[in-house]
Amino acid sequence: MAVDHTTRSVRITDVAALAGVSIGTASKALNDTGQLRDETRRRVKDAAEKLGFVGDARARALSSGRTFTVGMITTDSFGRFTMPVLLGAEDALSAGEMMVLVGDTRDDHVREAYYLRSLVARGVDGIIVTGRSADARPPIEVPLPVPVVYALTPSTDPSDVSMTLDDAAGAAAAATHLLGLGRRRIAVVTGPENARSAVERARGAAAALGDRLVGAPVHGEWSERWGRQAVDLLDRSSSAVDAVLCGNDQIARGVCDRLRETGRSVPGDVAVTGYDDWDVVALASRPPLTTVDMRLDELGRIAGRALLELVAGGRPASTAVTPSLVVRESTVGA
Amino acid sequence: MAVDHTTRSVRITDVAALAGVSIGTASKALNDTGQLRDETRRRVKDAAEKLGFVGDARARALSSGRTFTVGMITTDSFGRFTMPVLLGAEDALSAGEMMVLVGDTRDDHVREAYYLRSLVARGVDGIIVTGRSADARPPIEVPLPVPVVYALTPSTDPSDVSMTLDDAAGAAAAATHLLGLGRRRIAVVTGPENARSAVERARGAAAALGDRLVGAPVHGEWSERWGRQAVDLLDRSSSAVDAVLCGNDQIARGVCDRLRETGRSVPGDVAVTGYDDWDVVALASRPPLTTVDMRLDELGRIAGRALLELVAGGRPASTAVTPSLVVRESTVGA
Repeated sequence: MAVDHTTRSVRITDVAALAGVSIGTASKALNDTGQLRDETRRRVKDAAEKLGFVGDARARALSSGRTFTVGMITTDSFGRFTMPVLLGAEDALSAGEMMVLVGDTRDDHVREAYYLRSLVARGVDGIIVTGRSADARPPIEVPLPVPVVYALTPSTDPSDVSMTLDDAAGAAAAATHLLGLGRRRIAVVTGPENARSAVERARGAAAALGDRLVGAPVHGEWSERWGRQAVDLLDRSSSAVDAVLCGNDQIARGVCDRLRETGRSVPGDVAVTGYDDWDVVALASRPPLTTVDMRLDELGRIAGRALLELVAGGRPASTAVTPSLVVRESTVGA
Repeated sequence: MAVDHTTRSVRITDVAALAGVSIGTASKALNDTGQLRDETRRRVKDAAEKLGFVGDARARALSSGRTFTVGMITTDSFGRFTMPVLLGAEDALSAGEMMVLVGDTRDDHVREAYYLRSLVARGVDGIIVTGRSADARPPIEVPLPVPVVYALTPSTDPSDVSMTLDDAAGAAAAATHLLGLGRRRIAVVTGPENARSAVERARGAAAALGDRLVGAPVHGEWSERWGRQAVDLLDRSSSAVDAVLCGNDQIARGVCDRLRETGRSVPGDVAVTGYDDWDVVALASRPPLTTVDMRLDELGRIAGRALLELVAGGRPASTAVTPSLVVRESTVGA
């Protein structure tokens, strides 16, 4: 179909004509106001559905005081974290016919303030603030007349509603899995010491491993290169390990590669776990990684539901989503 | 800051009070209507800026017939392709104070139609339709009263405005680079035969390579595994090659790994190029990949600009963005 600018949307006059009623009657029927016979109301609604009539959301918004639109701002230009959260939020909101207005703030405070004002000017019912890390951020600076929910990246203000991931629980699940397979000398290799998720994952793993933890958790970059280097570091510093619990999938993939290249089999000699379940890394790894699914979609869903609850005047609690273990060949063989 | 639902947005009465004028005068000054002294108009605008007054976009939309909002629908749940396009479109649109309403159709026609109707009901000024592949799609089925631009995934209707990537030119740039380095026996390994981008990249590479192309381009999955298999296939089927031009970064990374594991150096013995410049693959590869940046952000910018042009009554032409070569160690050494 060519773009046809003259095509007009279906109007209430079309609905009234098809239903054989006046415009006033059609309006009352569609808005569930006035006194009409049930049969008339149904006939108008059938006609509206048949014609694909959606009404004018702007006019409806002005009369109801709601736009059924939610704003979402993010600092995650890359989209790896934002998109699953957005999809989850869409799931939660679409029941209420919501749509999402997005803005990428690119870590720029001026841009963030601009977007927030612009969202408010568009009459959004609420705003979801998300980002690319689990490190807490200052609350948004602009006073807003609508509710806000933070997702993934929490607000430093505990009175804000922040939906986060339970990184310690995810790492503990990986640790418990390795212990259950009979592994007894387990090293923890994770990301930077200044990243909350790296620290939380190391903490959760260490607590679950107890005296099966070999040495202290070692911190480095979130990269395959660090994973490869960490294997050499472990070889120099401790007696042989039979498992390596890694802070993300990239580190785990590097660990697998270096183990293989130095003559050890995964998982035969050493079992390896990742974290994130990022398919381009976890599935391409040799072998594919047992890892932790962060459940970002669920995070988005609970953020969306919390926002709906706030809009309706409720008081949802800040919640941490428990990630789930995904078992593949890096721990249980082919 | 705690979420404070009682905070109200700045109103025109606040602006009028600060500027010391009537509400009517403030309104005229802000809307650039009526007859006012320049000094008065400036005073009102200064007050509005000081207070962060943004007006009511909904009311302004009803009076102007425009909402300064653009809809974007995508089938790319994963977000790898959509997000750069979205960011580029944001760049182009923000000059006009646009914001983007997004919906992920998840390859579901019913959901797509629902989103399109919902975008129209919200009075968007125009719609960008994008996806995850370069394969043409049928034009959207719903008659729309606003202009539409297709980005990345073109419409099968040539009268639609479709912004695409010139895959043949991108592959030709990689081929020319390899020829310029003195490589003379070059194989082409790419993606599935039914993917337009795989076919176009093979075609562009073959044309640029001429009789330096060894054998016919070989097609397979968009995966590292296929890259590794392809090296074995090339070893069996042809005499030694001195370069492999790959259809994407995952294939190229697999080619590099297999070459190294079978005793050949990259780029010493064999130079390798990728396509996409997807950092998690291209930078993690050993060595990092010379590749082709698709310039999805530029694609988003021209799609956004074309939409603005359509909204203003212009007739932008469908355009193909020329990708650009990114040179790294897989062709030129460290």
